Amino acid sequence: MENLLKTLQFRSGLIPAVVVDAQTGELLTLCYMDEEALRETLRTGQVHVFRRSQGRVMPKGGTSGHVQLVREIRLDCEGSSLALHVEQKVAACHKGYRTCYFRRYDPQSDSFEITCEMGFDPDEVYGGANG
Amino acid sequence: MENLLKTLQFRSGLIPAVVVDAQTGELLTLCYMDEEALRETLRTGQVHVFRRSQGRVMPKGGTSGHVQLVREIRLDCEGSSLALHVEQKVAACHKGYRTCYFRRYDPQSDSFEITCEMGFDPDEVYGGANG
Repeated sequence: MENLLKTLQFRSGLIPAVVVDAQTGELLTLCYMDEEALRETLRTGQVHVFRRSQGRVMPKGGTSGHVQLVREIRLDCEGSSLALHVEQKVAACHKGYRTCYFRRYDPQSDSFEITCEMGFDPDEVYGGANG
Repeated sequence: MENLLKTLQFRSGLIPAVVVDAQTGELLTLCYMDEEALRETLRTGQVHVFRRSQGRVMPKGGTSGHVQLVREIRLDCEGSSLALHVEQKVAACHKGYRTCYFRRYDPQSDSFEITCEMGFDPDEVYGGANG
């Protein structure tokens, strides 16, 4: 993967990766990878992320089992971001929705509306601990 | 839009926005907005970005005319990124492709393959100057 690493532009050691459903193309989430997360993703075939809030590399879905199996890796024109086409188990969002973008913003009323159905109960999966 | 601004988490003054085709859901590009770019996007209905390489707010497609008309604004579970559903004029990528993610990475050969067709000739649109 040396050619890939040479082509990518990491900023402060990280590169954003847009994750989409390999079958439907639906946008699921946006995550960040450092070089180690990218290596682990390629080695295992499962998305690994650098979780900025915890400062470490983790497999996506490590707690919930809602893993993402990589079907295709794409990169943008500048090499400044990745697009991962994945097979998503159950749901991408820790709040229970298939996609993290489950809220629509209404500029008129300056308010939000949830437009997606829950895929699972977060309390059951995470035991009411952190999301 | 004060409620939106309160909900969003800007990092170093910026928030990433994933741009997808409103009709097909296809991932087009990833851009960055500061508060001013977001205000201009809402005011005009056209995507405005903070171009990090130039350090200023610009309308997307300002040179090429390949503007993005906003049809829907979504935000993720943490308020740390946006998803913009847009009507894309001609093509999103300054290299002539509909999407910026026109390259697929092949881990086996550690090489890239272009999988999309050109939507326009960049030399004609940008006059061979910058992309």
